[in-house]
Amino acid sequence: MAKASVHSEVVEAEGHLIDSQILNVVFDTVVKHTASFDVLKFDIGRSNDEPSSIAMRISAPTEQILGQVLEELVALGCRLADTQDAQVRVADRDGCVPDDFYSTTNHRTMVRLNAQWVGVEHQRMDAVIVIEGGHAYCRKLRDVRNGDAIVCGVGGVRVIPEFQERDRHGFAFMTNEISSERRVEVGVSRIAAMMQEIKAAGGRIAAVAGPVIVHTGGAVHFQELIRAGYVDVLLSGNALAVHDAEQALFGTSLGVDLNTGKAIEGGHRHHMRAINTISKAGGLKAAVEQGVLTSGVMYECIRHNVDYVLAGSIRDDGPLPDTIMDLRVAQDCYAEALQNVRLVLALSTMLHGIGVGNMLPSWVKMVCVDINPAVVTKLADRGSSQTIGVVTDVGLFLHRLAQRLRT
Amino acid sequence: MAKASVHSEVVEAEGHLIDSQILNVVFDTVVKHTASFDVLKFDIGRSNDEPSSIAMRISAPTEQILGQVLEELVALGCRLADTQDAQVRVADRDGCVPDDFYSTTNHRTMVRLNAQWVGVEHQRMDAVIVIEGGHAYCRKLRDVRNGDAIVCGVGGVRVIPEFQERDRHGFAFMTNEISSERRVEVGVSRIAAMMQEIKAAGGRIAAVAGPVIVHTGGAVHFQELIRAGYVDVLLSGNALAVHDAEQALFGTSLGVDLNTGKAIEGGHRHHMRAINTISKAGGLKAAVEQGVLTSGVMYECIRHNVDYVLAGSIRDDGPLPDTIMDLRVAQDCYAEALQNVRLVLALSTMLHGIGVGNMLPSWVKMVCVDINPAVVTKLADRGSSQTIGVVTDVGLFLHRLAQRLRT
Amino acid sequence: MAKASVHSEVVEAEGHLIDSQILNVVFDTVVKHTASFDVLKFDIGRSNDEPSSIAMRISAPTEQILGQVLEELVALGCRLADTQDAQVRVADRDGCVPDDFYSTTNHRTMVRLNAQWVGVEHQRMDAVIVIEGGHAYCRKLRDVRNGDAIVCGVGGVRVIPEFQERDRHGFAFMTNEISSERRVEVGVSRIAAMMQEIKAAGGRIAAVAGPVIVHTGGAVHFQELIRAGYVDVLLSGNALAVHDAEQALFGTSLGVDLNTGKAIEGGHRHHMRAINTISKAGGLKAAVEQGVLTSGVMYECIRHNVDYVLAGSIRDDGPLPDTIMDLRVAQDCYAEALQNVRLVLALSTMLHGIGVGNMLPSWVKMVCVDINPAVVTKLADRGSSQTIGVVTDVGLFLHRLAQRLRT
Amino acid sequence: MAKASVHSEVVEAEGHLIDSQILNVVFDTVVKHTASFDVLKFDIGRSNDEPSSIAMRISAPTEQILGQVLEELVALGCRLADTQDAQVRVADRDGCVPDDFYSTTNHRTMVRLNAQWVGVEHQRMDAVIVIEGGHAYCRKLRDVRNGDAIVCGVGGVRVIPEFQERDRHGFAFMTNEISSERRVEVGVSRIAAMMQEIKAAGGRIAAVAGPVIVHTGGAVHFQELIRAGYVDVLLSGNALAVHDAEQALFGTSLGVDLNTGKAIEGGHRHHMRAINTISKAGGLKAAVEQGVLTSGVMYECIRHNVDYVLAGSIRDDGPLPDTIMDLRVAQDCYAEALQNVRLVLALSTMLHGIGVGNMLPSWVKMVCVDINPAVVTKLADRGSSQTIGVVTDVGLFLHRLAQRLRT
Repeated sequence: MAKASVHSEVVEAEGHLIDSQILNVVFDTVVKHTASFDVLKFDIGRSNDEPSSIAMRISAPTEQILGQVLEELVALGCRLADTQDAQVRVADRDGCVPDDFYSTTNHRTMVRLNAQWVGVEHQRMDAVIVIEGGHAYCRKLRDVRNGDAIVCGVGGVRVIPEFQERDRHGFAFMTNEISSERRVEVGVSRIAAMMQEIKAAGGRIAAVAGPVIVHTGGAVHFQELIRAGYVDVLLSGNALAVHDAEQALFGTSLGVDLNTGKAIEGGHRHHMRAINTISKAGGLKAAVEQGVLTSGVMYECIRHNVDYVLAGSIRDDGPLPDTIMDLRVAQDCYAEALQNVRLVLALSTMLHGIGVGNMLPSWVKMVCVDINPAVVTKLADRGSSQTIGVVTDVGLFLHRLAQRLRT
Repeated sequence: MAKASVHSEVVEAEGHLIDSQILNVVFDTVVKHTASFDVLKFDIGRSNDEPSSIAMRISAPTEQILGQVLEELVALGCRLADTQDAQVRVADRDGCVPDDFYSTTNHRTMVRLNAQWVGVEHQRMDAVIVIEGGHAYCRKLRDVRNGDAIVCGVGGVRVIPEFQERDRHGFAFMTNEISSERRVEVGVSRIAAMMQEIKAAGGRIAAVAGPVIVHTGGAVHFQELIRAGYVDVLLSGNALAVHDAEQALFGTSLGVDLNTGKAIEGGHRHHMRAINTISKAGGLKAAVEQGVLTSGVMYECIRHNVDYVLAGSIRDDGPLPDTIMDLRVAQDCYAEALQNVRLVLALSTMLHGIGVGNMLPSWVKMVCVDINPAVVTKLADRGSSQTIGVVTDVGLFLHRLAQRLRT
Repeated sequence: MAKASVHSEVVEAEGHLIDSQILNVVFDTVVKHTASFDVLKFDIGRSNDEPSSIAMRISAPTEQILGQVLEELVALGCRLADTQDAQVRVADRDGCVPDDFYSTTNHRTMVRLNAQWVGVEHQRMDAVIVIEGGHAYCRKLRDVRNGDAIVCGVGGVRVIPEFQERDRHGFAFMTNEISSERRVEVGVSRIAAMMQEIKAAGGRIAAVAGPVIVHTGGAVHFQELIRAGYVDVLLSGNALAVHDAEQALFGTSLGVDLNTGKAIEGGHRHHMRAINTISKAGGLKAAVEQGVLTSGVMYECIRHNVDYVLAGSIRDDGPLPDTIMDLRVAQDCYAEALQNVRLVLALSTMLHGIGVGNMLPSWVKMVCVDINPAVVTKLADRGSSQTIGVVTDVGLFLHRLAQRLRT
Repeated sequence: MAKASVHSEVVEAEGHLIDSQILNVVFDTVVKHTASFDVLKFDIGRSNDEPSSIAMRISAPTEQILGQVLEELVALGCRLADTQDAQVRVADRDGCVPDDFYSTTNHRTMVRLNAQWVGVEHQRMDAVIVIEGGHAYCRKLRDVRNGDAIVCGVGGVRVIPEFQERDRHGFAFMTNEISSERRVEVGVSRIAAMMQEIKAAGGRIAAVAGPVIVHTGGAVHFQELIRAGYVDVLLSGNALAVHDAEQALFGTSLGVDLNTGKAIEGGHRHHMRAINTISKAGGLKAAVEQGVLTSGVMYECIRHNVDYVLAGSIRDDGPLPDTIMDLRVAQDCYAEALQNVRLVLALSTMLHGIGVGNMLPSWVKMVCVDINPAVVTKLADRGSSQTIGVVTDVGLFLHRLAQRLRT
């Protein structure tokens, strides 16, 4: 059937190919590129415990299209049947790589070096793979240095997707069910159980939080989570810390008295006064030590040795001395803080939530809570099955979560 | 200053004209119509307890524009200085009125009959005023009958707006603050206090609820409100009762198991089975009496003698025998049920919420809870200061409200 | 492997099982019910033109669970391997059916009668199947009469889902891509092409439209579609016709001057005057004939013999004499008007859009346009692959669509 | 009336106090703080061309409350009747000011120095006022240096709010009418007219744009605006430039082929390849000069000498060499680029839109376009009457705007 001008390659895959919807995405991908597939072998798992396996020949009208299709199939978990070592080429200047560099997904990845499959370390998406001393590492493009050995093409690369099936009995329940019409209390219970389980096993939990947790009154419940040891690291921006300090110092947040709900015209002046006060003290830690800052989210973090990283943004007032305005440094601090984290709670912050999502390997769960379904969809879109979206009021959510974790 | 071709009229108003923003709306209205005003007399309230009063001459280039401006100013609370009786004309066929009929607002309205100011009964918006036996009534256009005496024009009509000021220390706090970033718990506390106060004074509370209260798990908390006597009447549609019955009979709602959060493919079949089961019993009341329906929102309403009206809609399945599919009848039943109600809770239902909003006089408070800010804005837009919008998750809101009302 | 207490049945299916994601939904369904499957035979389509086929034994711990699983699998396109005629039982009272009635999906369905597979007519979801004179019909529960022969259980029932694959090269592109970030102009071009193709083939197109098309200025473009023959039937409610008449008679819609964008305080009086004027004329058709109504959407419908059905709702003012306030009648008129329609454009109306979606068989395409992603999601959720969601401004959408259809 | 323990002060104001709603905000502010007012003199403007003037005594139970009330009243446009020079105190360390510093609004502000009222330069909100060489400047807190002379308290400070009235016949039409139900085409026409007028007068226009303009296909229309000279400066982030380059180099944006609308699985690899390609060239300008980048938004900016500033963020991939990752520098570059701008178009970017809004004086108009009403509300909230919100599809909006500007 293959004409002289057809380019083709055999790929293989195995696992819960049907359950996890990988097989239909593979077929879709082939057809979308005007390529075609010919199934050579398919063994379906007879029951839901058994994996399936497939071998198929992919044919395309040009070498370039074939290359694109293969690149995508490898990202989905297929591998070239024709086993070979990964192709490695040398970067010839800082911050740049050869044109055909392999761009990573967030899934567990192996590369074949000297006929051995080696796991890639520091897995994250949109990175390149650098080979150093027999090890393979994910590295951000901007951190590549002249002379680095870069994996190119898809030969000798295997991606092992998280099979959705693994979660079926666990937390997948809400995946792809981003809707404000679902029962949030069921979600809260499962998230609480997941948190307790992770802490019992000595795992780490990160929170990424926006200033909305202060405006909505959720901060007091979030502080309870911190005191109870459920937050190991807090990733946020300048705004959360400023609104939190304003609340601690003046009892208002962005001009609203949280106890009466009344707007205070002069609230934005409180905002600037809070920044001035913390700056005068020399930063948040100093303000706590000097007894200037005596309550709030940042106070609890400092008192309970919770690491925090505040990343700057174009809209920041101040900023506080603690805010990292060099975003390269901030991204590195975020990534460092996320090492070995097993769960991330993203609380009403699209900006920082996406930033964190970009840094996580696919086996770290992320729970995204926001009242705006578009935010939850956007965060969940990136992380496939790893993200659990909860469309709800973050203030009431934190209240219920704190209640659940008390029992 | 007036040229021969200028048409003008003197209007007067008094009250908290500045606080309530009426004066600037009056000025805006005049300018928008290319008319002009000339302030003849203005007494400002010296302190915030004293009312202000104004008299001004409105001039317009045509009689028609003057008429339009005056019509709007009267709706805002101004009255013609030149006192006269209301002009009354006779409808010459059913369901129609003279072209210059006075179309009502939802504010308290007086008409001058035989040199006496008489209060209009059954006040609601978008109605006509019919004079019968010395009384004045709001009547829907479709209920007008040949021969009815209809108030026309704006002479002899006075509207008494609810001054926003009256509420300043009460519940106005959230008005115009429709935002998911406000602290919902403050709102819940005030709404709970308002409900307790109304019940203590023997007042009636209506709930208008959509099926989302079932999907979100809020129904159990709503049932607690019913059992505790906080709901005197429930206004809804077919869908709430069907989902509630489905939940009571099969433990699912629209195909989602509420305890586990798992989607049940066959859920929409449960939905139809629920309708069939209730229909077989002969309706909801019969189903309760026969022991077929033993829990849920409708069960609690029936057990606690809470009136309910279910209005049909184009998207209804079934419907249940209880659902009123003739919408004229349904509207009349809604209006009847709302008599003497002092507070309406609108829970995640734009359709029925707007329907109810149209029927209420402006002195009945309406609390609108929805996770979608657009719905809350739309409901609040209609009712000016009478509507309190709360953008939150209705399931968690009802949970908190029930907790608050227990204490 | 089967213990004495295990209940089981063999089911079969064929088609584009993987592409269309049916197989993984089947597996999911089985696992969700704590049942299990054992694949007896699986032939995968070797290329994307060839169908796959599967036979598997489904086992469940109880007869009831097995029944539920089978019911769901049949709805997905599986059939019992053990061929038998459909089981038929008699309804013993009006509006009710036996407890184990078969509840329909919107997919093409066959029932086996006297060893012959017969297609079900008037296919729609959430109906029962009545056998009459050797034919099978979908019938709404409320239209069932004492003595009707009702299909019960899933034996002898086959559902033939629309395979998503069929559309791959056509209009499926936007399915499941409900996002305001997609390029709307691509969507407009395809929808225009689809409309031209349907009209060229003599097919019918229905529009379901909300009043927002008037407020957003989309009405003039919609009128162009009507004049150009692209709308065969208009399904809507009272509000569209009232706002359209208000615009035609007074140049405003809900109090906004559409040419200047300025709010007119007295706009809601225009609204009531428009109703009074049309009522006086005796309805919309009479108003057109008498020269009272000389422009607008309803005018164009009447002038170009486009059928329209206006369904009443609880929030209606008036209503106009043309509005059908008995919702049973309105639903029947909608369903009648939708006969043989090949495409439905749902323009900014969740209520009527869901109503129409409930009535359509799955092979009729529905394009849903709304600026609120939640509305598009809700409509698309019901109709699986038949619904194309476009999140955009309906006014600008209609402008572009009219431009495209001119070329 | 004043008791010994009452603290009071007389304030004065004049202007369109009622039209602009300032007076009722003033009264609200007083009451909210449990202070009281006593109107000493009030002259109402007799017609809508005449300003009003007021003098009133504000009394409060404590000196501190009085101070807070006065601070807020001054921000609203009142001034102390007791004329005095502004109080100036010296900062005693970098980045900090005395506790009672005056925190600026974005309104035109005067300070009294040596009995002369002097205008404050570089007006922006949330800044402090520094006195240098007889001039007064707004300065960000972090730019304050030890020894700077800082204005403290409210004596000798006057704020001159933009009276809403000035705009009544112009562009105010959409203010506070943030609704997707308004006719966008009316808005487009007015915005186009405003842009033509500004360019005719030699004024500058800035655009703040998010990557959504690329995904929605709006970029080609935006490029037309650039070529036609309607954009003097572009403020954005890394993502716009990356998606734009991806589109120019590979014809995709975030994995979607913009011509067919089809998703390209490997799209996120295109994204990284685009960054690598531009980085290799040495940045955007170099890429244009080398003929690597030959189309797109950034290409047109470079070809037409439009200044651009790309500010980094925590979620950036890459970033491109052009992106400023030190946010202090990025903020300064933004502020510099906004000097003398008369209009800002904020196109689907909340982050950068808020950043820009913080930097603008109140007399620079800002048009905010977004499909999400919450974003438009949030941007409009900050800028009072200066912001015009348009809830619509940004792609179709740019198409219409470009069409309008052609005529």
